[in-house]
Amino acid sequence: MIHPHSLEPGVWHIQDPASQRLTWNKSPKSVLVIKKIRDASLLQPFKELCIYLMEENNMIVYVEKKVLEDPAIVSDDNFGPVKKKFCTFREDYDDISNQIDFIICLGGDGTLLYASSLFQGSVPPVMAFHLGSLGFLTPFNFENFQSQVNQVIEGNAAVILRSRLKVRVVKEPRDKKTAIHNGLSENGLDTEGGKQAMQYQVLNEVVIDRGPSSYLSNVDVYLDGHLITTVQGDGVIVSTPTGSTAYAAAAGASMVHPNVPAIMVTPICPHSLSFRPIVVPAGVELKIMLSPEARNTAWVSFDGRKRQEIRHGDSISITTSCYPLPSICVCDPVSDWFESLAQCLHWNVRKKQAHFPEDEEDS
Amino acid sequence: MIHPHSLEPGVWHIQDPASQRLTWNKSPKSVLVIKKIRDASLLQPFKELCIYLMEENNMIVYVEKKVLEDPAIVSDDNFGPVKKKFCTFREDYDDISNQIDFIICLGGDGTLLYASSLFQGSVPPVMAFHLGSLGFLTPFNFENFQSQVNQVIEGNAAVILRSRLKVRVVKEPRDKKTAIHNGLSENGLDTEGGKQAMQYQVLNEVVIDRGPSSYLSNVDVYLDGHLITTVQGDGVIVSTPTGSTAYAAAAGASMVHPNVPAIMVTPICPHSLSFRPIVVPAGVELKIMLSPEARNTAWVSFDGRKRQEIRHGDSISITTSCYPLPSICVCDPVSDWFESLAQCLHWNVRKKQAHFPEDEEDS
Amino acid sequence: MIHPHSLEPGVWHIQDPASQRLTWNKSPKSVLVIKKIRDASLLQPFKELCIYLMEENNMIVYVEKKVLEDPAIVSDDNFGPVKKKFCTFREDYDDISNQIDFIICLGGDGTLLYASSLFQGSVPPVMAFHLGSLGFLTPFNFENFQSQVNQVIEGNAAVILRSRLKVRVVKEPRDKKTAIHNGLSENGLDTEGGKQAMQYQVLNEVVIDRGPSSYLSNVDVYLDGHLITTVQGDGVIVSTPTGSTAYAAAAGASMVHPNVPAIMVTPICPHSLSFRPIVVPAGVELKIMLSPEARNTAWVSFDGRKRQEIRHGDSISITTSCYPLPSICVCDPVSDWFESLAQCLHWNVRKKQAHFPEDEEDS
Amino acid sequence: MIHPHSLEPGVWHIQDPASQRLTWNKSPKSVLVIKKIRDASLLQPFKELCIYLMEENNMIVYVEKKVLEDPAIVSDDNFGPVKKKFCTFREDYDDISNQIDFIICLGGDGTLLYASSLFQGSVPPVMAFHLGSLGFLTPFNFENFQSQVNQVIEGNAAVILRSRLKVRVVKEPRDKKTAIHNGLSENGLDTEGGKQAMQYQVLNEVVIDRGPSSYLSNVDVYLDGHLITTVQGDGVIVSTPTGSTAYAAAAGASMVHPNVPAIMVTPICPHSLSFRPIVVPAGVELKIMLSPEARNTAWVSFDGRKRQEIRHGDSISITTSCYPLPSICVCDPVSDWFESLAQCLHWNVRKKQAHFPEDEEDS
Repeated sequence: MIHPHSLEPGVWHIQDPASQRLTWNKSPKSVLVIKKIRDASLLQPFKELCIYLMEENNMIVYVEKKVLEDPAIVSDDNFGPVKKKFCTFREDYDDISNQIDFIICLGGDGTLLYASSLFQGSVPPVMAFHLGSLGFLTPFNFENFQSQVNQVIEGNAAVILRSRLKVRVVKEPRDKKTAIHNGLSENGLDTEGGKQAMQYQVLNEVVIDRGPSSYLSNVDVYLDGHLITTVQGDGVIVSTPTGSTAYAAAAGASMVHPNVPAIMVTPICPHSLSFRPIVVPAGVELKIMLSPEARNTAWVSFDGRKRQEIRHGDSISITTSCYPLPSICVCDPVSDWFESLAQCLHWNVRKKQAHFPEDEEDS
Repeated sequence: MIHPHSLEPGVWHIQDPASQRLTWNKSPKSVLVIKKIRDASLLQPFKELCIYLMEENNMIVYVEKKVLEDPAIVSDDNFGPVKKKFCTFREDYDDISNQIDFIICLGGDGTLLYASSLFQGSVPPVMAFHLGSLGFLTPFNFENFQSQVNQVIEGNAAVILRSRLKVRVVKEPRDKKTAIHNGLSENGLDTEGGKQAMQYQVLNEVVIDRGPSSYLSNVDVYLDGHLITTVQGDGVIVSTPTGSTAYAAAAGASMVHPNVPAIMVTPICPHSLSFRPIVVPAGVELKIMLSPEARNTAWVSFDGRKRQEIRHGDSISITTSCYPLPSICVCDPVSDWFESLAQCLHWNVRKKQAHFPEDEEDS
Repeated sequence: MIHPHSLEPGVWHIQDPASQRLTWNKSPKSVLVIKKIRDASLLQPFKELCIYLMEENNMIVYVEKKVLEDPAIVSDDNFGPVKKKFCTFREDYDDISNQIDFIICLGGDGTLLYASSLFQGSVPPVMAFHLGSLGFLTPFNFENFQSQVNQVIEGNAAVILRSRLKVRVVKEPRDKKTAIHNGLSENGLDTEGGKQAMQYQVLNEVVIDRGPSSYLSNVDVYLDGHLITTVQGDGVIVSTPTGSTAYAAAAGASMVHPNVPAIMVTPICPHSLSFRPIVVPAGVELKIMLSPEARNTAWVSFDGRKRQEIRHGDSISITTSCYPLPSICVCDPVSDWFESLAQCLHWNVRKKQAHFPEDEEDS
Repeated sequence: MIHPHSLEPGVWHIQDPASQRLTWNKSPKSVLVIKKIRDASLLQPFKELCIYLMEENNMIVYVEKKVLEDPAIVSDDNFGPVKKKFCTFREDYDDISNQIDFIICLGGDGTLLYASSLFQGSVPPVMAFHLGSLGFLTPFNFENFQSQVNQVIEGNAAVILRSRLKVRVVKEPRDKKTAIHNGLSENGLDTEGGKQAMQYQVLNEVVIDRGPSSYLSNVDVYLDGHLITTVQGDGVIVSTPTGSTAYAAAAGASMVHPNVPAIMVTPICPHSLSFRPIVVPAGVELKIMLSPEARNTAWVSFDGRKRQEIRHGDSISITTSCYPLPSICVCDPVSDWFESLAQCLHWNVRKKQAHFPEDEEDS
C-alpha cells in the first residue's frame, strides 16, 4: 500500500486537558482584583483578599478606580492605610494590559466576562472566586482563599485555555452622530474605504437578535465566504465552548467542553423545525449580515455588552481569537467542568427510581 | 507582565479543512471496490466501473468473493473475461489491509461503514458513490464517474480525515459457548487475567442500549477514570463527529463537523429531563459499564454491527482511534458537509414567508 | 361493585372535529373584507373579490377606511362606481361587531390575527385566502375564489372553532403620562381600586419577554391561584393550540391540534435545562407577574401587538375566552391542519432512504 | 348579525379539575390490594394495611393468589389468622371486575399499570401509595395511611379521571403456533374474516418500536382513516396525557395535564429533524401499520407489557377508551400534578442565581 502523504494518523494536536498547568518563569508580582460593584456582601472578602495579597505576599494590587470610590470603602477608616497602596486604573482610559501577572475575580460569572473585555490581546491567567454558589467561570470557593492563592502564586495549579472569539463589526458609513452613539471609537475605530470597523474579544458568545422588534430577524450566515444558511427567528448565537453552557444551552445546544477547538452556531427560536444547532471547527471564519429580504434591522451584543444595531450592508466577522483566556482550575479542566454541569445546570439530575413502566408483576 | 510558559496562544493545532488534499507518493495501482450486495440496480454501474478501472487504468481491482458469487454476475457472459482479472478476498479470512491504494464504494452509507470495518488499522482513502440520493458518507454522483475517478488517481482531490473510535470491550469470563457465540474470536480474542477482550474501530458510533428488554438501561459513564454520570433510559450513543448526523442526530444531538476533534455522548430517551448531550475533547478515554444497581443487561453495537450483550463487570473503553478514515471530497470538507445537511437532513429548510405574527396592519 | 357517582365514563364532551359545520339561520348579507395594506399584489384580487361579492351576490361589503385611502385604489377610475358602495369603518372608533355575517381575509396569517383583534366579543366566521403560499390560518387558495365563496354563502363548509385567550392586564397606578403612552384607554380602561385594567382577546399567544433588556426575565406563573413555577430566561409564551404552530413551535413546544381544549405554557430559552413546555386544561386561570427578585421589568404583547412594559405589582391573567374564532376549513379541521404542518412547517419531511447505519453486508 | 347555529361559545364541556370528587352511593365494602411482589420492604406495610382494612373497617380484602404464596407471608404465623380472610384470585383466570369497590396499590407506578390491566372495562377508583419516593401515579405517602384510607372510605377525596386508550390489534392469520405464542387468547381472541384480534386498555402508552432489530422501523400513522405521516426511526409512542410524563417525556414530548382530553403521538429518535411531537383531540381514531416499504417487522407493547411482533398487514387501532381510570388525589388534580413534576422529574429546577451574562459592571 502506498501511503498518501497527507494522511498520517494524528495530524491534529489536541490539548491534553490533564497536562495544562500554570508555570511561572518568574514569581508573579502584580495582581488585578476585579470585584463586582454595588454588592455589599463582597466588601469584607475584597478587603481580606487585598490585605492578604499586599501584606502577606507583597503583591502590587490593581483595582479599577470606581471600586475604591464605593462609599462603603471610602468611609472605612480601617481600610485607609491599605487603600493608598493600590494601583488604580479607569476602563477605556488606562492601559494595564502589560502590567498584570494574574487576575483574581470576586463575584459572579459576570466578573470574568468583564475581565475578558479588559484584555483585547493576551490575557493573564484568571483565578475566579464565587461567594455564593459555584459558577461555570468561578470555580473557587472563598473559604480558605489564602492557601488557594498561595498555590497559584507558587505555580501549582491546572489551567484551562478558554478560547475566545475575535469579532469584527464593519458598518456602512452613516451619519457621524450614530457612529459616536454606537461607541465606534471605544474599541479602535478604523476606516476601510469609508466604513467603520470595531473589534471585540468575546469569551461566551456574540448574539445577533431582533432586539426590541417583534418581527423575526433574518440574517445570513457565511462560513469561509460561502452562504451556509439564513436564520429566521429570534436570532442566532455564535459561541465558544465556554459559552455553550450559557445562553446557547438555553437555546438548546449541546454542551461542549472548553477544550474542544470549535465554534458553535445556535439559532434562537428558529422558525424552522429542522434548524438544529451546529458545531464547526475553530479554524473557520463566520460572517453574519442582514439578509437582503430582511425588513428590520438586527441587534448584536458581545458577552451581553455593547449592544448595537446592525443594518443592511453591515457585517459581523467572527474567528477564533489567538488570545484565549487562561482560567485557573480548582482541580482540573475535566473535573471542574462536570462539577459545574451538575451544580450550575443540574445536568442529568434524576430520581434513582424509575417511574417508567416497570412491570413488576410480569415474569 | 511575566508570560507563563504554558499559555502561548495557539497551543492547539487544528486541521485546516481547506488544506487537506490527497497526494500520492507513487501512482496508485490497486483499488478495492465495495458494492452493496443484493441490489440489482448496482450491477450495471459496478461492471462499468470495474471495466473502466481495469481496462482504461490498468488497476488491480479487489472485490469481496461473495460479490462475484452473485448469480447475476456469475451468469453474465459478457462480464466473463473481466471476472477472471479480479483479486478476491473473504471477510475475516484474508488480510488485504496492506494491498489497497484506495477504495471505491458503490451503494449507501452502509458500504462505507463496511469499508471501515475491514480496516482495523490504517485505512486507504475512500471514494464513495451514491446511486440514488446523496448520503453523508457517499458524496459522489455516479454520472461521469470516469472523470471523477481520474481526478482521484491523479491526486487532485480534497480529503477529510474522519476520526474513528477505538473501542475495547472486556468481558468477565463466562462459559466458552457464550464467548464463541458472541464472536469473540473474530476481532482478536485476547486474555487479560482470564478476561476476554475484543477491539473494534467505529466510524459513526458505539451504541449501548436496552436491547430487546422493555426495562430502562442503567449504565455508568466514566471519563478518564472518573464517573461522570449514570444514563437511565433507552441507552447512550458515543459517536464521532461523523456519527453526529446519524443516530445521534435522531437522539437530539447538535451536529458536529467532522473536522472538530471531539467525541459526543448522547443519551437515548433519557429518564432525566436535564440530560442534554455533551461534546468532549477527542483526547479523552470514556469507559462504560452497567451500573451496580442495573437489574438488566445492556447491549452494545458498533456502527450497527456485532451486536452483543453486556453484563455486570464487562466494560467498554472508547478512545479516538489513531487510524482515521480518509474520505475523498467532491468539493471540500466544508461545502460537502453543508450540502449533505441540506440534502440528507433538510437542515433549516423553511418557507421563506413567515407565518409568525406579522402585524401588517400595525404602524 | 358500587359505582361512585362522579365516575361515569364520558364526563367530558369533546368537539368531534368532523361534525362542526357552518349553518346559517338566514342567508348572510354582510361581509367584512380584510386586506393587508401596502401590498400591491393584493389590489387586483381585492377588487375582483369585492366586485364579485357586491355585484354577483348583493352583499354589503365592509372595509376599513384606510384600505380605500390607498392611492392605488383612489386613483383607479374603473373601481370608482364600486368604491361608493362600501361600508367603511375606522379601527378603535367605529363598532361593527354586530353588523358582520362573515369575514374574508386576503393576505397572510397577520390578517387573521388582525381580524381577531377587531372582535373582542363574538366573532363571525372567517374565510381566509392566501395569495402566495399556504398559511396555518389562511387555508384557501384564491384561484377559483368564486365557487369557494359560494359554498360558504350556502353554508356548505366545515368550521373549526379556534379557542382564544382572554387576557386581563392589571397595572399598579403610576403617572398618567405612562398610562396614556401605554395605550391604556384603547381597550377599555377601567379602574380597580385605583389600578388600571385592560383586556385583550388573543388567537395565537401572549408573550412575556425581556424586551430590549439583555438581562434574563424573571416571572412567576400561577395556576388557579397557586405559584407553579418561576420562569428565568428570555420569557414565556402562553398560547392557544392555534398558537402552538407559531412562536411556541419555535420555542420547542409540541404541536397541538386546535380542537384540543388546552392552554400551553412554553418557556423561551429557559435558564433551566429541565424546563419542558407544559399543556394544561382550557378551564384553568393562569396569572403571570414579575418575580419579587426580578431586577428588570418585562414586556408583554398580544398576538405580536400592543407591546407594553410590565413592572412589579402588575399582573397578567389569562383564561380561555368564551369567544372562539370560527375559522372556515377548506376540507376539514384534521386534514387542513396536517396539510399546513406539511406545507408551512415541513413537519417530518425526510429522505425516504435512510442514512442511518444499515448494515447491508451483514446477514 | 346572524348567529350561525353551530358556533355558540362553549361547545365543549371540559372537566373542571377542582370539582371532581369521589362520592359513594353506598359505603364501600370490598377493596383490592395490589402489592408489588418480590419486594421485602413492602411486606410489613402490606400486613399493616390489610389488618387495618379487615379488622378496623370490616372490609373484604381481595389479593392476587401469588401474593399470599410469597414464602415470607406463608411462614409468618402472626399473619396466619388474617390470611384466611382474604379473597384471592388469579390473573387471567378469575374475573373480579364487578366485585371491587376500590383499589389500593402499594409499590411503584408499575402497580397502577398492573391494576389498570386487570380491568378491561370500568375501573374502580384507585388509591396508590408510594413507599419510597413520590411517583406520578402513586401520590400517597404510607405514613399515617389510616387517616388517609378513612377519608377515602368516607368519600372525602378528589379524583382525577385518567383517560385510557383502547387498543385493538388485528393480525393477519399466520400459523397457529405463533398465535398462541403471542398470547392471542389471553385478551379475548376473536376472528374477523380469519384475522385475529386482541384488545387492550392502556393507561400510559402504546409503544411501537424496532424491537431487537438494529434497523430503523418504518410505520405509517393514520388518523380517522387518512395517512398523516410515516415514522422512520426507533419507533413511535401513542400516549395518554398520563403517559406524557413517562416514556413520551423521555422522547421529548411536552407534558400534558391528565385533564386535557387528548392523545399524543411522539416519535422515538426520528430520522427526520423536523418530526416534532403532536397532540390530537381525544375523539380521533389512530391506526398504525408497517409501511409497505418496511424491510423489518416492528414490535408493540402496552404499558410496557404483552410485547409482540407486528408484521405486514397487521394493524393497531387506538381510540380513547370509555373506561378511564379514576385515580384518587392527595390534594387535587392540579396540585398533585405539579408536585409530581417537581419531585419526580425535577421540572424547571434551577439555581436561582443566573450564570448567564450579567454585566454587573455595565451601567
